[in-house]
Amino acid sequence: MNNHDRKMHLNLFLASMGHHEASWRYPDAPTEHLFNFTYYKELVKKAEQAKMDSIFLADRTSTSSKSVKYGALTPFEPTTLLSALAVVTEKIGLIGTVSTSFNEPYNVARRFSSLDFLSNGRAGWNIITSGTDSEAQNFNLDKIPDHALRYKRAKEFLDVSIKLWDSWEDDAVILNKESGIFADSRKVHEINHKGEFFKVRGPLNISSSPQKRPVLVQAGTSENGKEFAATYAEAIFTAQQTFADAKAFYNKVKERVKKNGRNPDQVKILPGICPIIGETKEEVIETESKLQELMNFDHSLMQLSNRIGTDLTSAKLDEPLPELPVIEEIQGHKSRTELIIELAQRENLTLKQLLIRLAGGRGHYTIVGTPQKIADELEYWFLNGAADGFNIMPQIMNPDFDLFIRLVIPELQKRGLFRTEYTGNTLREHYGLAIPDNQFMSI
Amino acid sequence: MNNHDRKMHLNLFLASMGHHEASWRYPDAPTEHLFNFTYYKELVKKAEQAKMDSIFLADRTSTSSKSVKYGALTPFEPTTLLSALAVVTEKIGLIGTVSTSFNEPYNVARRFSSLDFLSNGRAGWNIITSGTDSEAQNFNLDKIPDHALRYKRAKEFLDVSIKLWDSWEDDAVILNKESGIFADSRKVHEINHKGEFFKVRGPLNISSSPQKRPVLVQAGTSENGKEFAATYAEAIFTAQQTFADAKAFYNKVKERVKKNGRNPDQVKILPGICPIIGETKEEVIETESKLQELMNFDHSLMQLSNRIGTDLTSAKLDEPLPELPVIEEIQGHKSRTELIIELAQRENLTLKQLLIRLAGGRGHYTIVGTPQKIADELEYWFLNGAADGFNIMPQIMNPDFDLFIRLVIPELQKRGLFRTEYTGNTLREHYGLAIPDNQFMSI
Repeated sequence: MNNHDRKMHLNLFLASMGHHEASWRYPDAPTEHLFNFTYYKELVKKAEQAKMDSIFLADRTSTSSKSVKYGALTPFEPTTLLSALAVVTEKIGLIGTVSTSFNEPYNVARRFSSLDFLSNGRAGWNIITSGTDSEAQNFNLDKIPDHALRYKRAKEFLDVSIKLWDSWEDDAVILNKESGIFADSRKVHEINHKGEFFKVRGPLNISSSPQKRPVLVQAGTSENGKEFAATYAEAIFTAQQTFADAKAFYNKVKERVKKNGRNPDQVKILPGICPIIGETKEEVIETESKLQELMNFDHSLMQLSNRIGTDLTSAKLDEPLPELPVIEEIQGHKSRTELIIELAQRENLTLKQLLIRLAGGRGHYTIVGTPQKIADELEYWFLNGAADGFNIMPQIMNPDFDLFIRLVIPELQKRGLFRTEYTGNTLREHYGLAIPDNQFMSI
Repeated sequence: MNNHDRKMHLNLFLASMGHHEASWRYPDAPTEHLFNFTYYKELVKKAEQAKMDSIFLADRTSTSSKSVKYGALTPFEPTTLLSALAVVTEKIGLIGTVSTSFNEPYNVARRFSSLDFLSNGRAGWNIITSGTDSEAQNFNLDKIPDHALRYKRAKEFLDVSIKLWDSWEDDAVILNKESGIFADSRKVHEINHKGEFFKVRGPLNISSSPQKRPVLVQAGTSENGKEFAATYAEAIFTAQQTFADAKAFYNKVKERVKKNGRNPDQVKILPGICPIIGETKEEVIETESKLQELMNFDHSLMQLSNRIGTDLTSAKLDEPLPELPVIEEIQGHKSRTELIIELAQRENLTLKQLLIRLAGGRGHYTIVGTPQKIADELEYWFLNGAADGFNIMPQIMNPDFDLFIRLVIPELQKRGLFRTEYTGNTLREHYGLAIPDNQFMSI
């Protein structure tokens, strides 16, 4: 593909009122619709009208009475919400997060196949391991298993899932009323997996779905995470604070993918971008300061504490970030914690300044500016080897997402950087991803 | 409620082309749409136009290359399919089967809350334990745990789920933009459950859903099943071969519910009814014999073997059902096996005759007749203490379900036995079920 034809991929990271932690308090935010499917449907339809590749839902399997005191919580679980969105949209990809830590591969592989059928080939799975004790405590454990063990389980979880998706060959279904043959039983395989974590016989109780398997997405950027991504991921959502970091990450991952014998073009890297957009500089500044005013630093501190697995709730706001455990000992969100520490040190921030910097995107890159400025930045990253596209995380959905669609996307289209029409129907087609070979074929 | 006002409840047991095992081969069956959501959507919309209370999806978490050779398999998993159906319908209840044997309560409670939000209060959960080795083998086991142990786990699974649904009091969400308070943290509770099978801290990461909890449905009719139903169920789907059996079951369950300190009116009993309908007797006979001609007895024998957990594939078709293990030793589908043995003995059937009798509804009551005859039968059971309504299982969707809607339902309405308009919006309202008390309220 020459650079002229290369288009960027744009994913909308759906987050009710926006990614800024105070977005639900913003005066224009339609917070009364937080519990209404219709609100999410309209956002996703807008993203589809703008020809975005996909939408994405994050997930986490715990909460606490303290954290919901100030933090808005949406009521939808990803696979159920995406199934509902699947039947009211036609083209846009639907990516959901499901953890490998507290689920069984047979159940998860099956739900994604079901979603892939419901959406006619638009399912994607963001594969995570759960990183906090509070999640472990909802699943029979006291503490979260250590980072390496979780990734070991995740790898086997993926191996089993892929075998299950492959357990029906593409042409196994015959559906012949006359002969009464529904499937060619030679093309439906037991997988007989026996591993350290799972023993699964198969076959899956769903035949091969339109995309054969969902697009596999990954976001971990720790060492274990990068190795996992290089082995399995077809798209990577990543948090990068600077162009230089993003470019280094991009090169490292693509190299590692190559070393693993895979085609680096078949792994799309999408850094997160959290814009605050205004038609003028004044407008931008106004929105930004309004959001800052609405922050609750008690809540911000608790969020940060949860994220990095260290209690900071009694730390002083006007002093630098206190000393944290060395990265090697962190069992939770390793790479994100590392990024946060680096950010605080590089810019010499007080804890309060750091919290403000994190409020808009929890460590993802925040851009504040006019549509022109945002488009320039995206173009620069895209054309200079730091990104195949972007995970768009509007700090407030209204007006940022509207402005992104109304002003930034047309600008990108004008520059020839983004599609003006969908050229395919499936998420794989939007991302330019091939259907992987079936390991059981022609046995 | 006096008898004049009492209306029956009608649930459509959705099964792609129909409940007869040869229905997918029937000439008029739109089998080419087996994989299309639109087909299911249209069926459910029809049921909704007819003012039926609910639709229901069964489930099983395994298949085999042998059983899909002749048996059609649908591609949808219940919670994902129901979520999709939720947003294209408005009134009809949506009941899905999820097993307690190979899932975690936090995940399941959450998905049903999500479905309840997506449907604005129309979610129902048919609670099962998985009964076969082939399912166990997809979840790290060699053999299915014994019947009593599965029910013990199911009971604790329910206790945890109910605590999780109760973990948010009804008025916990405050959503005040001004003060920045999202929830009253005193009304969001850790559940701190510690039992034999589960340790779960809570709270659920979804606030209290429109129905507070899904309608709890149960279908097991073994001793363990009946006890479970008397404790938890709000609706019971049951297989009963005769009016006398249905009436005895009805009385026994309602009594046991009462003994458990619950109101027997709050547990609705819906026997399964598998009709073949024709406008004339000749039409009925023609449909019935056409379906019989399309049966594959190899397949039927395998299905029966799976159902009762005993390999009958080499048994002789023209002889009586061979001796089976005594009921006490059956670890799989206990009560259904008992029903099948009784049916064969009572009517002195050869194995082949038994297979024909089971083909239309796997042990549920089959009625073959004109709309008038079907309505008479339903009325008799309903008015004489054998049923609060029925689980309608058309042997072939097309034409049986169409005929049921076009001719049987209007007949029932004419007789004042079935609603002509929905009077409520939620599944609880359709079934006349109260919202249960929250165990954490006013603590």
